[in-house]
Amino acid sequence: MALVTLVEYADAGAEVRAVYDDIMRTRAVDWVNNFWKALAHDPALLRRTWEQVKEVMAPGALDPLVKEMVYVAVSATNGCEYCTCSHTASARKQGMSEAMFMELMAVVGLANATNRLANGLRVDVDERFKP
Amino acid sequence: MALVTLVEYADAGAEVRAVYDDIMRTRAVDWVNNFWKALAHDPALLRRTWEQVKEVMAPGALDPLVKEMVYVAVSATNGCEYCTCSHTASARKQGMSEAMFMELMAVVGLANATNRLANGLRVDVDERFKP
Amino acid sequence: MALVTLVEYADAGAEVRAVYDDIMRTRAVDWVNNFWKALAHDPALLRRTWEQVKEVMAPGALDPLVKEMVYVAVSATNGCEYCTCSHTASARKQGMSEAMFMELMAVVGLANATNRLANGLRVDVDERFKP
Amino acid sequence: MALVTLVEYADAGAEVRAVYDDIMRTRAVDWVNNFWKALAHDPALLRRTWEQVKEVMAPGALDPLVKEMVYVAVSATNGCEYCTCSHTASARKQGMSEAMFMELMAVVGLANATNRLANGLRVDVDERFKP
Amino acid sequence: MALVTLVEYADAGAEVRAVYDDIMRTRAVDWVNNFWKALAHDPALLRRTWEQVKEVMAPGALDPLVKEMVYVAVSATNGCEYCTCSHTASARKQGMSEAMFMELMAVVGLANATNRLANGLRVDVDERFKP
Amino acid sequence: MALVTLVEYADAGAEVRAVYDDIMRTRAVDWVNNFWKALAHDPALLRRTWEQVKEVMAPGALDPLVKEMVYVAVSATNGCEYCTCSHTASARKQGMSEAMFMELMAVVGLANATNRLANGLRVDVDERFKP
Repeated sequence: MALVTLVEYADAGAEVRAVYDDIMRTRAVDWVNNFWKALAHDPALLRRTWEQVKEVMAPGALDPLVKEMVYVAVSATNGCEYCTCSHTASARKQGMSEAMFMELMAVVGLANATNRLANGLRVDVDERFKP
Repeated sequence: MALVTLVEYADAGAEVRAVYDDIMRTRAVDWVNNFWKALAHDPALLRRTWEQVKEVMAPGALDPLVKEMVYVAVSATNGCEYCTCSHTASARKQGMSEAMFMELMAVVGLANATNRLANGLRVDVDERFKP
Repeated sequence: MALVTLVEYADAGAEVRAVYDDIMRTRAVDWVNNFWKALAHDPALLRRTWEQVKEVMAPGALDPLVKEMVYVAVSATNGCEYCTCSHTASARKQGMSEAMFMELMAVVGLANATNRLANGLRVDVDERFKP
Repeated sequence: MALVTLVEYADAGAEVRAVYDDIMRTRAVDWVNNFWKALAHDPALLRRTWEQVKEVMAPGALDPLVKEMVYVAVSATNGCEYCTCSHTASARKQGMSEAMFMELMAVVGLANATNRLANGLRVDVDERFKP
Repeated sequence: MALVTLVEYADAGAEVRAVYDDIMRTRAVDWVNNFWKALAHDPALLRRTWEQVKEVMAPGALDPLVKEMVYVAVSATNGCEYCTCSHTASARKQGMSEAMFMELMAVVGLANATNRLANGLRVDVDERFKP
Repeated sequence: MALVTLVEYADAGAEVRAVYDDIMRTRAVDWVNNFWKALAHDPALLRRTWEQVKEVMAPGALDPLVKEMVYVAVSATNGCEYCTCSHTASARKQGMSEAMFMELMAVVGLANATNRLANGLRVDVDERFKP
């Protein structure tokens, strides 16, 4: 029930196809997921978003699997079904075991709880935590 | 400007002192941060919360530093100043470099953006992502 | 799967019917959407909410279409499926093109990203931005 | 550092003064808090918001103190400092003890945790919970 | 479409069964809802979460029905479908009438509105509200 | 109290200076605000974020002022102080009057309220709203 139609490869213009090709090549898959097909209505938004994902999620100071798990943590916190499902799938593909997934959820649950305890009681930040 | 006073060690009862002692022993520090001093008004809540933090944040299927960074990611997403500052301090103590912190923020920013693109366009989850 | 039944016109009391009539007259339509039929279990809440929507969304210092797009932006940020769908439909009826919708989503995504970068890095507000 | 100036009684027009008078009379106090003085830049918004607060927070099927505590719970969840402080003050005035406040925070923390566990694991709603 | 399978009683180990038994005994029901069956993949997380729910939601300074309604308020604010449905069912079982539910929603809606008015206008907390 | 130091122009490397120069040139100002000085610890993140802001906020299918107001609406909803202040300043510079700002806040407040009413009552999306 997406609010825009999904732009399939066959119907896409050159700029969109170039992004789809790069997604499939980078991920070594032969399909493009719905998120990109929805963004394709705005080729510039599609390109910018993909370039960011490609750059940000690549190996760097943090391991790609750690990044995927952080992505799942944020998506679960925001209640985004699409990103929770897609990035959990991606994290599993990169080696996240069920035990790792459950521990990740435990941290997410705990952080959400203490965030509200700190906010509700309006606790002042300790001087020692200030950089 | 916390909405409750902070319970100092000298003024704490036995149940609260036992938790404070365990916090300091577990973390190998000689002080207790404000969050726990605010929770101490409800000794059962203090104890339950500390036991959870101790158990969830310990080494397991995930590395403690990864857990701290997930904690920071959730806290930044929820806009919780206290937890963002305290868990960033903790992550740094455990080895998070500035490059790692900045990359973490880049993932958090990106996930928050795509969460809303997916939610705003109401993109359906691909069958292939379903477990 | 609403948590309350939907109150249909035929089953509604006078106070609810008066609101339903005003909704249909104001919007020049011959039906009432589910949101109002759920609120109708509390006629005072129904009336208050409708009066607000009528007053706030009317032409004023801001154009009604701009207001609808702001409504979509907030609903996408909060992940509210019902309001995202209903206000996107309404914005389109008032002239929002697909290009406008996609640009709106681009702004929403970007704002959500930078909100978390600013919150995660705890950047101080510049003096020059203070009113 | 509010983004608009605060409209003091002496500088207010008749419509704003009428609302200020009603706030003070209803609450049996001789001052008006900052929130209303900021809203006063839009007298219609001020009036609508006050009328809602007055109607919604009055005794009804729920006790006013329960309503104030629900208000605090929502405000802590959203991280709104102003409303957390003002409605905690109001709840205390109406009889919320420190033990009640701490238990309220415990429920808020727990609900925020399980909300994310359910959202992160995408648990399906049991048929028995459907109305 | 949960992201983990549901662990049924017949397939559960001793630690998980002990929690399931305690849930059924405490609630005087003969079934366990999906949330716990998902958490059961991490028996320690299951146990910790259940012990918290049992302790926090028990009678104390606040009435259990008030606690359930606060839980619904937080879950609606966070947009968590599972918890909104399960805790609304639980609150109804404990005596929440439809009038009480609708009033609860009215408070939740209003608090969410004023939270954003205060945050958007950046209204300073009045000195008188400070504890 | 930012969690990273602010990188001043004098201390910045060539890549960062190039972005700072482009910010000042594009906005026709002689200073760079704190947000960018914090991001500068990760020159790639700084560049990507600025390029996005520059591209997304430029005139297009939507007017730049409308985009700034949408930015404020999202930032107020998320409770981000920095972005609420900076984008309100920017919207004012581009012509947002006080009446427009107050109406914007009225829409933001209302949308946040009805988002939670729809989510709390779990109202099904009307078939007629589906695209």
